[in-house]
Amino acid sequence: MEKESLLMLPGPVPMPERVRFAMSRQAINHRSAEFGAVYADCVRVLKTTFGTTNDVFVISGSGTAGMEAAVANFGRDKEIACFVNGKFGERLYKISQRYGKAHEIKSEWGTPLDLAALEAQLEAGAQVVTLVHNETSAGIKNPAAEIGKLARKHDALFVMDGITSVGGDLVETDKWGVDVAIVGSQKCLAAPAGLAAVSVSARAWERLTKNPPYYLDLAAYKKSAAGKPMETPYTPAVPLFLALREACLIVEEEGLANRIARHQKMAKAVRAAAQAWGLSLFPKLDAKHEYATTVTAVSYPDGISDDAVRATIKKLGITIAGGQDHLKGKIFRIGTMGAVSAPEILATLAATQHGLVKAGYKIKGNGVEAAAEVLE
Amino acid sequence: MEKESLLMLPGPVPMPERVRFAMSRQAINHRSAEFGAVYADCVRVLKTTFGTTNDVFVISGSGTAGMEAAVANFGRDKEIACFVNGKFGERLYKISQRYGKAHEIKSEWGTPLDLAALEAQLEAGAQVVTLVHNETSAGIKNPAAEIGKLARKHDALFVMDGITSVGGDLVETDKWGVDVAIVGSQKCLAAPAGLAAVSVSARAWERLTKNPPYYLDLAAYKKSAAGKPMETPYTPAVPLFLALREACLIVEEEGLANRIARHQKMAKAVRAAAQAWGLSLFPKLDAKHEYATTVTAVSYPDGISDDAVRATIKKLGITIAGGQDHLKGKIFRIGTMGAVSAPEILATLAATQHGLVKAGYKIKGNGVEAAAEVLE
Repeated sequence: MEKESLLMLPGPVPMPERVRFAMSRQAINHRSAEFGAVYADCVRVLKTTFGTTNDVFVISGSGTAGMEAAVANFGRDKEIACFVNGKFGERLYKISQRYGKAHEIKSEWGTPLDLAALEAQLEAGAQVVTLVHNETSAGIKNPAAEIGKLARKHDALFVMDGITSVGGDLVETDKWGVDVAIVGSQKCLAAPAGLAAVSVSARAWERLTKNPPYYLDLAAYKKSAAGKPMETPYTPAVPLFLALREACLIVEEEGLANRIARHQKMAKAVRAAAQAWGLSLFPKLDAKHEYATTVTAVSYPDGISDDAVRATIKKLGITIAGGQDHLKGKIFRIGTMGAVSAPEILATLAATQHGLVKAGYKIKGNGVEAAAEVLE
Repeated sequence: MEKESLLMLPGPVPMPERVRFAMSRQAINHRSAEFGAVYADCVRVLKTTFGTTNDVFVISGSGTAGMEAAVANFGRDKEIACFVNGKFGERLYKISQRYGKAHEIKSEWGTPLDLAALEAQLEAGAQVVTLVHNETSAGIKNPAAEIGKLARKHDALFVMDGITSVGGDLVETDKWGVDVAIVGSQKCLAAPAGLAAVSVSARAWERLTKNPPYYLDLAAYKKSAAGKPMETPYTPAVPLFLALREACLIVEEEGLANRIARHQKMAKAVRAAAQAWGLSLFPKLDAKHEYATTVTAVSYPDGISDDAVRATIKKLGITIAGGQDHLKGKIFRIGTMGAVSAPEILATLAATQHGLVKAGYKIKGNGVEAAAEVLE
């Protein structure tokens, strides 16, 4: 039977039918009231989802384009303190190196960030702080509220990658003092890949670079969004906007609080399964850091082959993620993002349990049952 | 009846059903052999369509992102000679100003470029030449082959925006000496908006900047495309790739020569109609410049209101373009791009004729009949 593998990745994730079929309509003019209304719907819901009254723009490009827009418009030629405890923190650091003077504040992947080191950087003159809220490469959630406070205390701009948290976990852009927040479409919003949304505070606008790139020039986005009809400065990826609108309407219909509670429950179920199996979660936490709500990273026990486990899972029609870069073979990651709920989680955990057993791991207990207990 | 307006714009254009419905499938993993095969199909057909054996990459972003990729990777800190005889030439000039030392070689919109001025710039040390092959804002086709020769003679890189010519008109990237060519998805390829493809010559690679942007870093595209499976460096807009693949397969099935001949015939039909009506085509040509094959720009006679004409056409379910910027109200433009053929052209010309008459213009003759004669 030809059927898509169930993607239980930390993005992309399965899309609801409404979202997918919104893309199949005929081309519409992107300089029209109709498109303007689509864009406005997206922005209205995204503002709620970001927890902000700041400007929000949608960029036709991936989350990485959103990260670069943030750094290029607000970090050029600045001293930038970059938190790194996973792959996406590294990416923000690499982007920052291309635009400003970037200072890495590095922890091992999946371990707590060094907030004292940030204070030192801020005292030494850092003007911008970059953070990945939810580090999917390691399954750790970083203390955005506290970092926001430190940034504000030292009058630095706070750029937060919320690519895999916005829409699936609590994000309070304004309350936390996030000046630029970013989300990707194919994560908790359960829209197709290819769009990023970026919020910009008034404080950030005051510090806008005079030398922005062109495609990611946020002042141009601001000008076009203020037009009637609301527009993007360059041709937008219209089908993706149509899909994102549906995805946003679904978020609105579910209610953000319900959606976050659902995500939290799904992650709790996956953690319960891992624990029941006798496996360790990969992140090392302290009082300030938490397990991610939208992805769970689990360490393989010694001698258990990632390839073997995930091949079995794949045979059962499900795709979960392995580790990236130096974590390849050492962890597996199960995404709990977007439109999925109990059936997908149970199927995934059943397949994972089978994969672990088949690869030679002696499970301590029935993880699927433990998860069902949480999900019920 | 709710039905999409027939878009006879110089992009976006109507998409074949196969292309549209390719987007509605469930999310697939973009780090997979399946996605790699989709990307490879696109690149295979695009190479033929560009007339190149150079590397071709697909970027998740609009044509403007493709233009910026060209300039940012190969024009940074260089002396750049920028031909401008329309809006998109201006855009390439503006982008060039953000990356290098840009020198505008300006003509009135829709009038011939000054090739002698280019020679002077090249002799004065210009290292990069930018050209819009098909200037849709004015309906003029610029002499790319000749400009390529001049660039090569002076060992300058030749960046050509083929956004609205590739796939609908003859483009010979390699024969003309184009080092970087760009196409947009929503033009002659009749795919959805949101992707750009860029070709890069070996000569261009040798002169790659050491300081590229991040999202548009073409070396990263090259590295990922060489992988097994073929990949993009950052998450691609998967549904748009699926659609572009179908659009490319349609180009292959039609055959490029047939497709170009069809586009030429459609433009000829529109020109014949304008002539029959007694209207002037907007571009002022010399022996080296031609009317565009993929869009026809027609000057309004004095006293005829653009708003009135296009409102009538819109009532009849068809959208054509007006003029941009200072040409607003002075010209109308009919796109002849992509999947459209005789029925759409005839309907558009019939509606336009009616719009002109209703707005008070006394047509000289029956343009629809003249077009039918050409199309038959």
